[in-house]
Amino acid sequence: MSRSEVSAVDDAEWALWDAFGAMHAQLGRELDRRLQRDAGISQGDYAVMLALFRAPERSLRPGPLGEQIGWEKSRLSHQLTRMVGRGLVERVECDTDGRGSVIVLTNAGRLAMLRAMRDHAVAIRSLFLDLLEPEEKQAIADASARVLERLAETDERAAS
Amino acid sequence: MSRSEVSAVDDAEWALWDAFGAMHAQLGRELDRRLQRDAGISQGDYAVMLALFRAPERSLRPGPLGEQIGWEKSRLSHQLTRMVGRGLVERVECDTDGRGSVIVLTNAGRLAMLRAMRDHAVAIRSLFLDLLEPEEKQAIADASARVLERLAETDERAAS
Repeated sequence: MSRSEVSAVDDAEWALWDAFGAMHAQLGRELDRRLQRDAGISQGDYAVMLALFRAPERSLRPGPLGEQIGWEKSRLSHQLTRMVGRGLVERVECDTDGRGSVIVLTNAGRLAMLRAMRDHAVAIRSLFLDLLEPEEKQAIADASARVLERLAETDERAAS
Repeated sequence: MSRSEVSAVDDAEWALWDAFGAMHAQLGRELDRRLQRDAGISQGDYAVMLALFRAPERSLRPGPLGEQIGWEKSRLSHQLTRMVGRGLVERVECDTDGRGSVIVLTNAGRLAMLRAMRDHAVAIRSLFLDLLEPEEKQAIADASARVLERLAETDERAAS
């Protein structure tokens, strides 16, 4: 029995959904594999360092950092301990305002991140961007924006 | 410092990449949430049951099942133990060919899966398919196929 026989989605639409999901999942795995191979950086390292790299003074408190990358407190805490050990980030205590520590990207972390971002961009270009026609890029950007908007509305409805 | 200053990808392309990634990740989380809420089924349950549902005689050996859904042996084994406990799947020993057990979708599992597939299709339609213009669907399908083809070539090169 096929999925289109038991649901309101036809075969062509299931094929689109499956291809889109497979593309995103496989692309993510290949990008992770290259990041690890070329820069010795995991997907988790990358997410943390990207958030810090883009933050003012390359630093964030653990709370907002976790929110930004969508991680729970304990997962972030373990990850940060490992990254402190490798010299990529530092925990700086801020006794002055009584709000605890701030996570700061070190100079070594900044250099590792610059290298990883260059490698990552080359991989994203050769495996994704260079394979798309301009109108396909536009279509994907428009569709993504519309889906994200609908999801945000869904969240608001659920919250109210 | 922005990512476009340190890499071969410009701002518009980074925006496309980020929107596409956010869309797929957030859509996945919302679909999982609804599947759990409406059918009491996790993403892991769904992946296992979908593979069995589509297999001949609704059964697979653990090896091919794990390969199909991309899971390691120990993760699959724990998941199957929980699903046997809930009556969704059965382990049937096949002594005749000496190749160990086969995992079979039970009747209760089949009914749970039918319900989940209908709910899942309704959600995919309202949060994704219905928001796309026909030419956007075509663009996403074409782009996905091309990226998957390139990834497959990369795998072949790595293997040879």
